[in-house]
Amino acid sequence: MRHRSVFITASVVICSAISVSVAAFAQDAALPSWQDGASKQAIVDFVTDVTSEGSADFVPVPERVATFDNDGTLWVEQPMYTQLAFAIDRVHQLAPQHPEWQTTQPFQSILENDMETLSASGEQGLMEIVAATHAGMSTDAFAEIVTRWISTAKDPHFDKAYTSLVYEPMLELMDYLRANGFKTYIVSGGGIEFMRPWTEKVYGIPPEQVVGSSIVSEYKVIDGVPSLERTGKIGFIDDKDGKPVGILSHIGRRPIAAFGNSDGDYQMLQWTTNGAGKRLGMIVHHDDGVREYAYDRDSHFGRLDKGLDDAESQGWHIISMKNDWMTVFPQE
Amino acid sequence: MRHRSVFITASVVICSAISVSVAAFAQDAALPSWQDGASKQAIVDFVTDVTSEGSADFVPVPERVATFDNDGTLWVEQPMYTQLAFAIDRVHQLAPQHPEWQTTQPFQSILENDMETLSASGEQGLMEIVAATHAGMSTDAFAEIVTRWISTAKDPHFDKAYTSLVYEPMLELMDYLRANGFKTYIVSGGGIEFMRPWTEKVYGIPPEQVVGSSIVSEYKVIDGVPSLERTGKIGFIDDKDGKPVGILSHIGRRPIAAFGNSDGDYQMLQWTTNGAGKRLGMIVHHDDGVREYAYDRDSHFGRLDKGLDDAESQGWHIISMKNDWMTVFPQE
Repeated sequence: MRHRSVFITASVVICSAISVSVAAFAQDAALPSWQDGASKQAIVDFVTDVTSEGSADFVPVPERVATFDNDGTLWVEQPMYTQLAFAIDRVHQLAPQHPEWQTTQPFQSILENDMETLSASGEQGLMEIVAATHAGMSTDAFAEIVTRWISTAKDPHFDKAYTSLVYEPMLELMDYLRANGFKTYIVSGGGIEFMRPWTEKVYGIPPEQVVGSSIVSEYKVIDGVPSLERTGKIGFIDDKDGKPVGILSHIGRRPIAAFGNSDGDYQMLQWTTNGAGKRLGMIVHHDDGVREYAYDRDSHFGRLDKGLDDAESQGWHIISMKNDWMTVFPQE
Repeated sequence: MRHRSVFITASVVICSAISVSVAAFAQDAALPSWQDGASKQAIVDFVTDVTSEGSADFVPVPERVATFDNDGTLWVEQPMYTQLAFAIDRVHQLAPQHPEWQTTQPFQSILENDMETLSASGEQGLMEIVAATHAGMSTDAFAEIVTRWISTAKDPHFDKAYTSLVYEPMLELMDYLRANGFKTYIVSGGGIEFMRPWTEKVYGIPPEQVVGSSIVSEYKVIDGVPSLERTGKIGFIDDKDGKPVGILSHIGRRPIAAFGNSDGDYQMLQWTTNGAGKRLGMIVHHDDGVREYAYDRDSHFGRLDKGLDDAESQGWHIISMKNDWMTVFPQE
């Protein structure tokens, strides 16, 4: 074994040397869509500190974990979560097989485009919609349904594919972190199986680095063919208090950087930035009604209230979409 | 961005070229503790097929997922699971603070070293022991308890540290797979938080690649300090039907190779080997009463019955510990 170890060590050294020059190069060219200012500086300072060997804040590569919320942090969440748009489309699509929905809530409200009644159906209504649209098929079949939908559906406001409505500065940030040895994870309240089919292509985040809410799946052998079948039962809600729990379960390490945009990310930011050593917590503030949307304390989706109050005392940086981002979306 | 991409691409090419020579070198020197024979051949053939570009069975690196059971597959599970030995030690250690345990089952049986009564306490008894020994502290505190125990406790039969009682041929197998672009995961019925503190050091498997059973943890802020607190409530049992479910949740990809040793691994093997393309399923058969233990159909721990019956029809390879392994444990 000795020869092999030496050989592998030698190649690791060569590759590491190359990585260092890639990182140094990346540092100069990094974050081109970020306006020079406090937010960009906070990112660059943090990365420089935790990656400089000999620095008191140096963090070894395996512990460089960064977590990102998805809705409103990596892509648009207005006028409603994309996954809700998917569920509504599914209800319309499945309606011919469910004539009873014409007169049963919450389905009737969707078919009649009555968003007020839909909202009033609350959590119970949402669970029924999830069970009807996200369950009763295998995980493979669901992944196909999501893939088909996401490649054709369009956001009505921007008239663009949902996967085009991702934030260019955040793509650059994830790229920059990865070039500096970070593992980037999504930690979202959205469905884990709704995100996994496209996160690798859109964000460069592979399925095993996606943490999200889930329904219970059951292993079944049907006519000799093994399958994982999606039940209508909620398994885990990866939001608020659930985010640090999801991080523990999937990652088993405490992140050193976390990025969110709503009070649903509060506990993830708190858990991340209260660890020992240098930490980075940032909140994307939607204050750009011209290029995207302006909302915070009163929004139905992505409400940011307590996070805004406590950011300063917690040491979290507020990213102003309007002032910190030179561009919002990737160029076509 | 263009310059940076070109530069990164160039370094990826260089590193890939180095990796290829590492892999080629590894191929010759690989699996030195494996006797030449059907088992070793099955491994080498599989890896060669799925890693040869242009081969009909070629699998891209990100999809090269291999899962390993832990107890009885990577380390010794007799005369009892190591985690049970840990729990028993914890009961003895905590007994002074629990005088009531002297007369309360299942604790009394442990304190009186009465394994028969302990066994008879069944699943309910086990849950009570887990709640008393694995819960009521933070995840960080539990990791410290495990780390301290595992670095000092000794297996009574071999009089060695438990982490020395890992199978050298399986360490070589994981090494060989990783040198060929595989990501190796543990998928164990054991506790995820019981394994994570030491799997990186012992197996080269980082915490985020460990899947296991879990109790429910809750996020709490205690005197201003955020913490993940271990409750006594069972969250997920990663055994039998649970293994493919745990794989779905944590990995989000179907493995192409799986390794187990008991009927608890049946569904993981079945799920893995019934996928499209070339697959590898192997069962470690404990048939070496001289160097380790000989057991299968009637064993209390690691019972292998249905797996033995169905291996041939399912195309799973049986690894004979006695005949296929030149050495069992790593040299001191």
